[in-house]
Amino acid sequence: MQDYHEHSAFWKHSLEEGLKEDGWPWDWTARGSVRQGQIKARVVAKSSGIWVGQALASAVTKIVGQPLIRETLPDGSPVSAGSIVAQWEGPAHWVLALERPALNLAAFASGIATQTSRLVDIVRSSGMKNPPRVTCTRKTLPGYRDLSIASVIAGGGHPHRVSLSGGVLIKENHIASAGGIIAAVRGARAVAPHGLRVEIEVRNLVELSQALDAGVEAVLLDNFTPALVTDAIRAISLHQNSKVIVEVSGGISESNIKAYVQEGVHVISVGSLTHSVKPLDLSLLVQGA
Amino acid sequence: MQDYHEHSAFWKHSLEEGLKEDGWPWDWTARGSVRQGQIKARVVAKSSGIWVGQALASAVTKIVGQPLIRETLPDGSPVSAGSIVAQWEGPAHWVLALERPALNLAAFASGIATQTSRLVDIVRSSGMKNPPRVTCTRKTLPGYRDLSIASVIAGGGHPHRVSLSGGVLIKENHIASAGGIIAAVRGARAVAPHGLRVEIEVRNLVELSQALDAGVEAVLLDNFTPALVTDAIRAISLHQNSKVIVEVSGGISESNIKAYVQEGVHVISVGSLTHSVKPLDLSLLVQGA
Amino acid sequence: MQDYHEHSAFWKHSLEEGLKEDGWPWDWTARGSVRQGQIKARVVAKSSGIWVGQALASAVTKIVGQPLIRETLPDGSPVSAGSIVAQWEGPAHWVLALERPALNLAAFASGIATQTSRLVDIVRSSGMKNPPRVTCTRKTLPGYRDLSIASVIAGGGHPHRVSLSGGVLIKENHIASAGGIIAAVRGARAVAPHGLRVEIEVRNLVELSQALDAGVEAVLLDNFTPALVTDAIRAISLHQNSKVIVEVSGGISESNIKAYVQEGVHVISVGSLTHSVKPLDLSLLVQGA
Amino acid sequence: MQDYHEHSAFWKHSLEEGLKEDGWPWDWTARGSVRQGQIKARVVAKSSGIWVGQALASAVTKIVGQPLIRETLPDGSPVSAGSIVAQWEGPAHWVLALERPALNLAAFASGIATQTSRLVDIVRSSGMKNPPRVTCTRKTLPGYRDLSIASVIAGGGHPHRVSLSGGVLIKENHIASAGGIIAAVRGARAVAPHGLRVEIEVRNLVELSQALDAGVEAVLLDNFTPALVTDAIRAISLHQNSKVIVEVSGGISESNIKAYVQEGVHVISVGSLTHSVKPLDLSLLVQGA
Amino acid sequence: MQDYHEHSAFWKHSLEEGLKEDGWPWDWTARGSVRQGQIKARVVAKSSGIWVGQALASAVTKIVGQPLIRETLPDGSPVSAGSIVAQWEGPAHWVLALERPALNLAAFASGIATQTSRLVDIVRSSGMKNPPRVTCTRKTLPGYRDLSIASVIAGGGHPHRVSLSGGVLIKENHIASAGGIIAAVRGARAVAPHGLRVEIEVRNLVELSQALDAGVEAVLLDNFTPALVTDAIRAISLHQNSKVIVEVSGGISESNIKAYVQEGVHVISVGSLTHSVKPLDLSLLVQGA
Amino acid sequence: MQDYHEHSAFWKHSLEEGLKEDGWPWDWTARGSVRQGQIKARVVAKSSGIWVGQALASAVTKIVGQPLIRETLPDGSPVSAGSIVAQWEGPAHWVLALERPALNLAAFASGIATQTSRLVDIVRSSGMKNPPRVTCTRKTLPGYRDLSIASVIAGGGHPHRVSLSGGVLIKENHIASAGGIIAAVRGARAVAPHGLRVEIEVRNLVELSQALDAGVEAVLLDNFTPALVTDAIRAISLHQNSKVIVEVSGGISESNIKAYVQEGVHVISVGSLTHSVKPLDLSLLVQGA
Repeated sequence: MQDYHEHSAFWKHSLEEGLKEDGWPWDWTARGSVRQGQIKARVVAKSSGIWVGQALASAVTKIVGQPLIRETLPDGSPVSAGSIVAQWEGPAHWVLALERPALNLAAFASGIATQTSRLVDIVRSSGMKNPPRVTCTRKTLPGYRDLSIASVIAGGGHPHRVSLSGGVLIKENHIASAGGIIAAVRGARAVAPHGLRVEIEVRNLVELSQALDAGVEAVLLDNFTPALVTDAIRAISLHQNSKVIVEVSGGISESNIKAYVQEGVHVISVGSLTHSVKPLDLSLLVQGA
Repeated sequence: MQDYHEHSAFWKHSLEEGLKEDGWPWDWTARGSVRQGQIKARVVAKSSGIWVGQALASAVTKIVGQPLIRETLPDGSPVSAGSIVAQWEGPAHWVLALERPALNLAAFASGIATQTSRLVDIVRSSGMKNPPRVTCTRKTLPGYRDLSIASVIAGGGHPHRVSLSGGVLIKENHIASAGGIIAAVRGARAVAPHGLRVEIEVRNLVELSQALDAGVEAVLLDNFTPALVTDAIRAISLHQNSKVIVEVSGGISESNIKAYVQEGVHVISVGSLTHSVKPLDLSLLVQGA
Repeated sequence: MQDYHEHSAFWKHSLEEGLKEDGWPWDWTARGSVRQGQIKARVVAKSSGIWVGQALASAVTKIVGQPLIRETLPDGSPVSAGSIVAQWEGPAHWVLALERPALNLAAFASGIATQTSRLVDIVRSSGMKNPPRVTCTRKTLPGYRDLSIASVIAGGGHPHRVSLSGGVLIKENHIASAGGIIAAVRGARAVAPHGLRVEIEVRNLVELSQALDAGVEAVLLDNFTPALVTDAIRAISLHQNSKVIVEVSGGISESNIKAYVQEGVHVISVGSLTHSVKPLDLSLLVQGA
Repeated sequence: MQDYHEHSAFWKHSLEEGLKEDGWPWDWTARGSVRQGQIKARVVAKSSGIWVGQALASAVTKIVGQPLIRETLPDGSPVSAGSIVAQWEGPAHWVLALERPALNLAAFASGIATQTSRLVDIVRSSGMKNPPRVTCTRKTLPGYRDLSIASVIAGGGHPHRVSLSGGVLIKENHIASAGGIIAAVRGARAVAPHGLRVEIEVRNLVELSQALDAGVEAVLLDNFTPALVTDAIRAISLHQNSKVIVEVSGGISESNIKAYVQEGVHVISVGSLTHSVKPLDLSLLVQGA
Repeated sequence: MQDYHEHSAFWKHSLEEGLKEDGWPWDWTARGSVRQGQIKARVVAKSSGIWVGQALASAVTKIVGQPLIRETLPDGSPVSAGSIVAQWEGPAHWVLALERPALNLAAFASGIATQTSRLVDIVRSSGMKNPPRVTCTRKTLPGYRDLSIASVIAGGGHPHRVSLSGGVLIKENHIASAGGIIAAVRGARAVAPHGLRVEIEVRNLVELSQALDAGVEAVLLDNFTPALVTDAIRAISLHQNSKVIVEVSGGISESNIKAYVQEGVHVISVGSLTHSVKPLDLSLLVQGA
Repeated sequence: MQDYHEHSAFWKHSLEEGLKEDGWPWDWTARGSVRQGQIKARVVAKSSGIWVGQALASAVTKIVGQPLIRETLPDGSPVSAGSIVAQWEGPAHWVLALERPALNLAAFASGIATQTSRLVDIVRSSGMKNPPRVTCTRKTLPGYRDLSIASVIAGGGHPHRVSLSGGVLIKENHIASAGGIIAAVRGARAVAPHGLRVEIEVRNLVELSQALDAGVEAVLLDNFTPALVTDAIRAISLHQNSKVIVEVSGGISESNIKAYVQEGVHVISVGSLTHSVKPLDLSLLVQGA
């Protein structure tokens, strides 16, 4: 079980960005309205999904200098409309100042986890013994790589390479630049650390065959239809390099993922998990208001 | 006409974040593949929308130390599937390194502009002489306030307050904290700079009436149905404070905005413009690849 | 009542700047002299004024990792020569290291509050029911905007716009650039958020008349003599736009502000409050020394 | 002759701070007014003094990405009311954005140089062959140590220790903490690098005598009247340690410095040079405006 | 061939750190001595080795705002005592300011490359067709990971995982924490991205056998004598998991590496390459001096 | 006795750099292995030397938000193989994450102190009443000036000037640039603060004689043999400027320092103390592992 403090450096940095953007402490509205010292508030989900935002508690404590978020659900908890995800209590001006950036962040993170969870549920519903992983890609907003990956994991998904140094993935542009699949694979092997597998993206069965011949450890079937994936897996099973890891990607979503859950597919990567995020609807309600 | 350098500090910072997250310069794949020194590439839109990404050119120049993006469309340009939005030319390893963070950023920004533009088009199609503005809200990802606002403007929309110091907007939690509408309005007037109007969010016609009596300069009709908006506007027109600025907000989208385009509505604010972004689909193609 | 923690991020950052500039921890003098572990010290005002420096306590606690400033007056407290404004107790090397940057900061902030307070007292002594506000301007040292505004408020003054995004103030250079008052006002209305009033600076009664005709919400009478201000107010009262907010500015100081306190003047802005600061004289005395 | 690029890192950093505080690029006023692309402007002194601001040219070039300040006087140039200190030419929105932070900085720096120059002129008017130096102290605003020292030098003054690591100066609190003058001097000698002289602050002739006996290389006569300084110099001349460097400090200003210009005084340090700055009055005038 | 600009962000950052630590621009010695505007200088190696420092040229250009290092050898060039590695020409105060941090950096980097090169030469002298790689470890000074890896590569070595996210390496403490080899391997597989091989550190032949049984893709023979390595390789060759990658590590140096160059060893990792650096002796000589 | 918190800002910053470089929190190995919440561990020295790393305790506390290093030896403690230098207890993932950067830092710092201590012991073994100081130089890795100096002090050595602003040291290049020794000395005196002595580096007895004539307060005998040092000291003793401080430097190490310990030598500076560091061998052992 991971400790919720673990990502708090990211959350803290991001909350501080949010406060800066809000021009805090020059919140005239709150300065003009806040009378009482301490208030209580609840953060409530307004639709169902997966909550990610546990680390806000320690991040906020570091910013404020005292605890403000008193209770909160652990990351990955399923919630439904009306669920209380966190209880806040503390100085009113702090609650009102942190409300917007905290909710913006948690809604984004929870939105990623929620969508991941939906895809994972479909994959698992296949009943396969070793169903494929659902992973994100590198299509994350600059500055949000860490939060995006953490949210995918909280939703039951898996990470792809975190950075370019954490994986070799040869794509169309690399092959063109190297002058062919063989050259690109050989080149990558020559420079990459020995702990990395070499993966290559292929666009059709011909390229797949070349890739397998080149001895790669993983292939990414890019924009293959489910039927073509089936053909590819058959081809792989007949090849000497049959233990290759198989990833599928390209336009996979809630509506079509089921067709990609096939024996022989190990990884399903989904760019939209992190680039087209629908935030979880969250609201902070001051008690007594 | 605004200069495209204007936002380049933000874009540069964000690209650098992206490079850092990618662990650059440890891109083993590119290091193993890149043979030739210089390459050319095109960035192509794969669906229609509004392009935002002009400032990438100067941002990339500052990072690389020489121009890399040779031509690019101005922000706000309409594009369709197949449109070339930018031409790149330079060292292959730089092109491959910057591709992903540059596209992630521009796709996000263009996505905001595209959706804004759709709503603005609907509003304008009403034929009203002074149609309401379409604005964003403060629901932006921490670190992305500036880019989000710039993209809304590029799409034909307008900004709401940039930060808490740039506007007074009294909400439910403030009223509760102040002990009533009168107290909240008076409190805000006492502390806010004289250049700011006082705006208050109301949930029904009773609160609207109180707000108008309190002499506010703007009201936000929150989660009002179009019919209720009509009632509200009628009530306002009969009130001594009839010149008040009227904003509507809450669940407004492409599917229902038309009904909110009424005489007497000055501002339509739409949170989803910046919190539920569907990125424009962009692709970088190395020439010859 | 504002919480004293509120501005501590600024104070902490600034103290750390000060420690860095002092090359801390390489304070040879203190390293060579300090024998005992713990010392007590008092910070004493050496002239009368208004104290601003309460937030040093929490800022110092965060830097040191334990409380060092045990008691301190709240911001805005009037002090006279000999008043003890703070009691310190802790490791001698920390006390000696933080003494200079802490005093430099508090002396500057208190100096602003002190001078603001003097002007505010003169304004209030008029006995007017709604006397004009005394505000600062944007003439603040880069990096000191926040502290300057907070100090003006502590001295009984008011903020002007915090940043360019928090107000519209059309000046001579803008009018020239736009091609006239009408164009500048129309331009500003077209781009500024709806929560901002439009204010324009005028140099004489002719410009004032044009500005009023243009329907601005506020005018700044720049470098008007008190007599000319009286004329201006009369002209305004006869104009349809008579509810316009009236600000006066330009060379206003302790010696002449009284003459500007006239019915119909709402704001008196004084650049020297923040650009020509005379620090409050403060001294830290180690007890037993 | 020093290169004007030398301090540009500081000026650039500080300008960027200023732009951030101004919420740039959200300058609604300029966005609404600026029509033409390029404008010319002059920065003019409105009173006499010493100009410091040459480094703004290269700092601004780095920020904008192209030259904006075309000509400017070298630091240390004397100016009078009406003198043009710089010529700007470039994009209107950049000129208007940088005007305020650039002027705030240069006015502050020039103000320090101006006042330094006045004191130095008085000292030099004594006709002494080796007149005492005029120096600043460590009473500088956090973040402004570098600019303050550079401005003092531009005005003909000299630096005191830049940081605590660049000099030993034993004060009252150190003596108390060490348990006496002898212990404090011995302690400092034991830890300080061999390249530093040991200086001690004394409050009267008795302490002076003890300090001389302790073999210090410099003494600071703190808050001595001119007459007492004369006595002190006589005492020093009769002591074995007669080559000691003599610094005077405490309440020295334009009105009384002449009396401290005595044979045997080597350094006159003046805190107000940097802590009570009266900025030089500067104005940017758009041409044609 | 990689572009020498590639690492300049690191070098620039590090040079700026160096200038800051040197208290630049307060270099009294240079300020007092420098007369002429422009000087030329040579950087000369005073012993033989491998030069790394090409990126200084572009880094220095960015800092100074103009080229200063006119010619320099490419990274990885062998040099001997007396070799000129770079020619500088520019403002004297910049040359003298940058001399020390630039030389400190390049000497460190070149020292790593030099020692790497010595080990690589020994390995290659074995005449093996596919001799083992020489790699560094994670024993690098915080802030110097990038420079260390780049220098190892320049010396003919290879990188190990750049960061913890770029490889799985199960060590003694992990095994203990997981409760055994099987659990640790299974745990790593469950969370690590699919592009990473699982490597495990073993201390003896028993652990090796368990690791092979667990199906790891790489083993690290820790502190094995050369003879024991031979035994291990034999055991591996007889195991079903015979294609495992074999790394040896622990106390390997110039004096004993030859004995580890055995068929079946793929990687030799050497911590001292980056943690016990003997800098290359470099000197900057002003011409005419 | 110095407080161990004193340098914790540096240690904290550096640990955070280390965590960033390690890509934390994406430590797949630890994530896959760590089962229990809390573990205990010991940091053990594997060879003899001087320990520096006490400040890690408070630095780690600030990063983690709770104490992790429970006990640790004070800086400067002598240790031998097997000595426990610190006890850790806390969340397993934090222990494993911080292990490597903490050990890398402490090993480096302790390595400097260890080598310093060896030289100091030799110097002290001379039995001289006032033996020369052993100091470091400015040959420190950018970013490691502070840690290097602190480690030299912990090992019984002394600092040289911390930065260029903290001392005047005229070298060959300065003399050439100034046009001679007299000009360089005069120039330095004219600009340096009065608290600094002027030191000059000389290469032979002729230059020494010129330097003494020029009235410098310190001379650095650069690359003098011990015999030549003896000659130099004799020459100095006969000169009017006989109280000059004498520093020797250049190729001094454990093997030859004894010969430089002569009456009349006050400072022995050794570049290799900080540029050729052999780290102390440290190991973290999880208990039960």
